[in-house]
Amino acid sequence: MNSPFYKNHGPIKISEILSILKLKNDQLLNDDNISDVKDLTSAKKNHITFFHSKKYESIAKNTKASFCITLKNLSHILPKNCKPIIVSNVLVSISKITSKFYPNSINDNFDNTVLAIEETKFKNTVNFGKNILIGKNVSIGTNCSIGHNTIIEKNVFIGNNCSIGSNVILRSTIIRNNVNILDNCVLGKHGFGFFPDKEKNLRYPHIGIVIIEDNCEIGCNSTIDRGSMSNTVIGKNTYLDNQIHIAHNVKIGENSIIAGQVGIAGSSIIGNNVKIGGQAGISGHLRIGNNVEIGGGSGVIKDIPDNSKVMGYPAKNIRDFLRNIK
Amino acid sequence: MNSPFYKNHGPIKISEILSILKLKNDQLLNDDNISDVKDLTSAKKNHITFFHSKKYESIAKNTKASFCITLKNLSHILPKNCKPIIVSNVLVSISKITSKFYPNSINDNFDNTVLAIEETKFKNTVNFGKNILIGKNVSIGTNCSIGHNTIIEKNVFIGNNCSIGSNVILRSTIIRNNVNILDNCVLGKHGFGFFPDKEKNLRYPHIGIVIIEDNCEIGCNSTIDRGSMSNTVIGKNTYLDNQIHIAHNVKIGENSIIAGQVGIAGSSIIGNNVKIGGQAGISGHLRIGNNVEIGGGSGVIKDIPDNSKVMGYPAKNIRDFLRNIK
Amino acid sequence: MNSPFYKNHGPIKISEILSILKLKNDQLLNDDNISDVKDLTSAKKNHITFFHSKKYESIAKNTKASFCITLKNLSHILPKNCKPIIVSNVLVSISKITSKFYPNSINDNFDNTVLAIEETKFKNTVNFGKNILIGKNVSIGTNCSIGHNTIIEKNVFIGNNCSIGSNVILRSTIIRNNVNILDNCVLGKHGFGFFPDKEKNLRYPHIGIVIIEDNCEIGCNSTIDRGSMSNTVIGKNTYLDNQIHIAHNVKIGENSIIAGQVGIAGSSIIGNNVKIGGQAGISGHLRIGNNVEIGGGSGVIKDIPDNSKVMGYPAKNIRDFLRNIK
Repeated sequence: MNSPFYKNHGPIKISEILSILKLKNDQLLNDDNISDVKDLTSAKKNHITFFHSKKYESIAKNTKASFCITLKNLSHILPKNCKPIIVSNVLVSISKITSKFYPNSINDNFDNTVLAIEETKFKNTVNFGKNILIGKNVSIGTNCSIGHNTIIEKNVFIGNNCSIGSNVILRSTIIRNNVNILDNCVLGKHGFGFFPDKEKNLRYPHIGIVIIEDNCEIGCNSTIDRGSMSNTVIGKNTYLDNQIHIAHNVKIGENSIIAGQVGIAGSSIIGNNVKIGGQAGISGHLRIGNNVEIGGGSGVIKDIPDNSKVMGYPAKNIRDFLRNIK
Repeated sequence: MNSPFYKNHGPIKISEILSILKLKNDQLLNDDNISDVKDLTSAKKNHITFFHSKKYESIAKNTKASFCITLKNLSHILPKNCKPIIVSNVLVSISKITSKFYPNSINDNFDNTVLAIEETKFKNTVNFGKNILIGKNVSIGTNCSIGHNTIIEKNVFIGNNCSIGSNVILRSTIIRNNVNILDNCVLGKHGFGFFPDKEKNLRYPHIGIVIIEDNCEIGCNSTIDRGSMSNTVIGKNTYLDNQIHIAHNVKIGENSIIAGQVGIAGSSIIGNNVKIGGQAGISGHLRIGNNVEIGGGSGVIKDIPDNSKVMGYPAKNIRDFLRNIK
Repeated sequence: MNSPFYKNHGPIKISEILSILKLKNDQLLNDDNISDVKDLTSAKKNHITFFHSKKYESIAKNTKASFCITLKNLSHILPKNCKPIIVSNVLVSISKITSKFYPNSINDNFDNTVLAIEETKFKNTVNFGKNILIGKNVSIGTNCSIGHNTIIEKNVFIGNNCSIGSNVILRSTIIRNNVNILDNCVLGKHGFGFFPDKEKNLRYPHIGIVIIEDNCEIGCNSTIDRGSMSNTVIGKNTYLDNQIHIAHNVKIGENSIIAGQVGIAGSSIIGNNVKIGGQAGISGHLRIGNNVEIGGGSGVIKDIPDNSKVMGYPAKNIRDFLRNIK
């Protein structure tokens, strides 16, 4: 993924990377220029990547990266083209490196580039309410409306025929066409990703964005966080009800229907034509197949295959759940 | 129900209704003027209604409507005064007809009739904060206060001695006397009602409103959606805590107490003197009796009779729930 | 606890207190001046306190208060220095007394003391966005930023290096150093504490405040209510995700991590180094120990000892929970 909104401040030399990590050059690495930081799959030559769990062995074997932050006992898995940089905590180390490449992706202070919409080029092209603020690097298509008090911070692209409600806050977000974002939503905030530390937690950089595909609707008071190393995506014609929380890196497919107060934890992937009942929760890093129905109030803690109907906490086949009710 | 806020654009001729539904006049219906669209119970002569499930057989038999959108295999149940119009999908068809009668009830774009409160007649009668917007067809009683940044869109009636917080958004809502609406609430948005369609979901019209009866309190960041064909009602002296979601057509009785993060799905009816613990969820189309207590975290998926105490997911008698804890 | 923000309108004479409670002076109490109302533990000489449940017997025995609102059958437990005032409903009575000492702690109408930040001393010391309002008795340290449309009502102290997001509402809150409060949060509103009454519920005074210790982060659309007789406290370096509800009097320890949509009911006390998964709920008046892990979706209805891992509804040892999944 190339982040469309977060500027890459690379290249960074290997000597500087070692210095950031407080490492000596024991392995006598060349002082190459590293041009970007990526995950194992998308990294290319002259990129640095990271590998922290045996779970990712098969993709680590084939990475194209030139360097990889990893653990001593995983380093032999990497291919010849990829030099290991051995650390004791991979995620904290890659976080520090990513912060160096993308220093603007950590802090979510308010955007001080905003202007009143009347002072921007949108005053003649958008149907707008009162007290609207627009940051730099914003585009808005034709036939859009934006409600009162809404704040569109920098780095937001909105397509055609979109309706943005009132009191909405958008940043680092791409909204395609025919999308409705209802009142009081916050889209594009950094996710809840950080490394715990007794004195002061270390925030993980979030260089991903939020993408809302065509024809979606996002209900009132919902929050959709942007991704860390990948994007958070809501697929075409998917509808979300009120008070829904979508965490960082989540991807939801097309034509899905998600009822009120549902929460989806980080990095889970939801298929197409999925129905999720109210207040259901989905743990992080799961895969929910296509055509799945998840009953209201369910707590999903493992992958769900295509065409399943589940309910319960933990969620199981809905017939098993209902059999136990009497 | 006559919608107080959504203007009826009827009458509409039968020939136009058939044309909207792409039907031929196989039944040689008279080209009568239809004055309104209503549910089976409230429809009168010269109204059109709909009948889509055998569940409603007993009320369908007695409808006063002159025409009824229905399925072939249900049409024989209708009384003589009511001519069937046979379709393959009743709900989609009635949605299209309702949209024709009430074209302003589908889209919830921001209200562009609003003025700063200082430019309205309320500047001398209301105790108000900064940056408040008021739409047309708004009334506000005596001794009311309205907090900063609050948006009262068109079609809102507020009684006496009410306190509306800051950052609140109201539309299509009647608030009686001595009511407190706390910060960041959104009341009167259309419900999560639509017909799924692969290309672009079809929004169902919402011609109902929200009614908050005397002496209620609604906690911060709550959302109460307006009804589709009926109203969403919070009964007298009922208190809602923070982050509660009340879906369309829900009716809650008097003297009820609903703790934080509760969600009540569409069209459920809650009795008087009901206590609902935090994070409990109630499925749609249920009836919860009077004097019911629902434990925190419960998931209610069937009707609950008067005077019951339930807990669990699915909710059951609280003694059975607690017995299983050990 | 001395409330830093709610002015004590005492002293109040015993004769006036009896009059408020519609009691005769059957016990021939001296008409002393009472200087404050406190709980059993913090009350001192010339204070009035309350004792309503045998559960508090051991602390009631040692109270330093001069007077105590209590029930007839509990009055013999009080020490000699503390004269009982016998009532039929202790909590309603103490509520009326507290309202007399602290009349400004009941009503949460918007703060009409606010000024645009440009009209305050902060215009030169704070990095601020558009449309920000600041009430009286507010202090803000060095190197702070405050986002657009944020309302800081009266009685808010903010330390150094804090970032307050946009659309945030703060009142009766102390925020220490290096704290991030994200968009759309509401902190310091009165809790959901009141005495149900058929005609009109009686609101309990909330003279406590919210305290956010150093290095905390509070996610978007969260609500943290102030305490009634004690404070609501978020401990040092504790992070809260989005859409979290923290009720009145809750105390959370240091270095804790609380995922999205969690709700913690009134007066519960959470230890240090606690991890709470998404959508978990914790009932009121519980003690959760240090180093506890609570799985996502759990419903905690009893105390949890130190170093436990629990999951489920009701929450139990996580091994027992997972064993039942199959």
